[in-house]
Amino acid sequence: MEAHRQTMSSPRFYIPAEFSEGDLIQLPQDEAVHALRVLRLEEGDTITLLNGKGAKAEAILSTDGEPTRRARSASCKILSVQEFDRPCPAITLYVAPPRNKNMETVLKAATELGASEIVPILCRHGVAKPEKDAIQNWQLTLIAASKQSANPWLPEIHEPMDFGEALNACQIPGVFGAVPGPEDKALPFPDPQGAPRLALWIGPEGGFAPEEDQALRAGDVVPLTVGSWTLRVETAAIALLAVALDRYDIHHQR
Amino acid sequence: MEAHRQTMSSPRFYIPAEFSEGDLIQLPQDEAVHALRVLRLEEGDTITLLNGKGAKAEAILSTDGEPTRRARSASCKILSVQEFDRPCPAITLYVAPPRNKNMETVLKAATELGASEIVPILCRHGVAKPEKDAIQNWQLTLIAASKQSANPWLPEIHEPMDFGEALNACQIPGVFGAVPGPEDKALPFPDPQGAPRLALWIGPEGGFAPEEDQALRAGDVVPLTVGSWTLRVETAAIALLAVALDRYDIHHQR
Repeated sequence: MEAHRQTMSSPRFYIPAEFSEGDLIQLPQDEAVHALRVLRLEEGDTITLLNGKGAKAEAILSTDGEPTRRARSASCKILSVQEFDRPCPAITLYVAPPRNKNMETVLKAATELGASEIVPILCRHGVAKPEKDAIQNWQLTLIAASKQSANPWLPEIHEPMDFGEALNACQIPGVFGAVPGPEDKALPFPDPQGAPRLALWIGPEGGFAPEEDQALRAGDVVPLTVGSWTLRVETAAIALLAVALDRYDIHHQR
Repeated sequence: MEAHRQTMSSPRFYIPAEFSEGDLIQLPQDEAVHALRVLRLEEGDTITLLNGKGAKAEAILSTDGEPTRRARSASCKILSVQEFDRPCPAITLYVAPPRNKNMETVLKAATELGASEIVPILCRHGVAKPEKDAIQNWQLTLIAASKQSANPWLPEIHEPMDFGEALNACQIPGVFGAVPGPEDKALPFPDPQGAPRLALWIGPEGGFAPEEDQALRAGDVVPLTVGSWTLRVETAAIALLAVALDRYDIHHQR
């Protein structure tokens, strides 16, 4: 396993701050506890910082003079900073939230695949209105996924919106997950070259209601089906994100 | 919700048998219990049968003369049978199994998306060797996903194989999930027209080991990356399946 370990990057921490070489940065309390108690890192260990706004930094951990085991806080000194371009295409994922664990799957995968924004939508066939504090938990899931996937751009999550309101407010070209039918297969996406932004619309487990489906088509949102069978919300969200990224890459390599 | 309910199909049951119009078929014990005790179906209700080999049947439930509440077994009479073509392309998913729940996610999505075969592979960086009885549980997950997604073709799951052994035995063109790097983006897939079969290779959480990566490339398995960041096994499996299906559909509509 040694060779494997050596190829692993250093532990990642999320700190929503500006990074500059030489800066001394205090770790937030929960990140310090995680570093010292869970990962058992030591003074002088190398760590990676992500600020969620495209910056990644290598830094050296410090326990501010305290012996590591007794330290209750930690800081770090930034050695180097790397800035990453914004995700391109910038994808906004409009998704009818499935039940808890499954929404976590959607949020993790959206972060790994590099979605820019996530808008939970309330549809007629939606399973449940999200709890009041759902958005705080979703935010924590996004941060954890950002650290796991090393994506320095944290997707922005919005307050849940009514489907019709969200569709009216949406100004970017879009694609929606449709019930499989041969007529909707492999339609061309809206041209990604003009403005590399795309909205992906994923309905609830019971599918978009007929009037929602009609509203999407009337708004020039293109139906897309992947495979021939009924997809759960999680599978549909991941599948459409992957197809959108792949079509964009192919388009831009020709 | 009434309009929604009316559009839902009748409850689905998995019965690995041949279906013919007019046949009387006994429901397996667990499916009968599910129908009568959990779904509380009644004598005369319409149900859908899937045999996992491409056949779907509409049938009428019978409790063999017993009052439904007391019945301990159930049979059904087949009204009509529909046969579906084998999945095309026929995709074999070679995947290093992640931990329990996450392997379930892979299996469910593979069924929804219509994979033909699944081969668990043991890689150097794999998290854990599957338990002896893992394959029985995986089989149940596939059956549940087949019922949920209405896919009448049950993916075939194989016993776990050593990576090298699986690669040597594999005779079909393949694509593997690679660590993101610009050089591997949007490479053309092996031509799907000659033989519409494709192998998808998904490594473990720590990635394919360098010698595994080399063996794949040496065997003309094409690297594919989706997005720019590290994907978990589940996300990678779903993303690659979706991209493979989409590229095939686009290719065949031109």
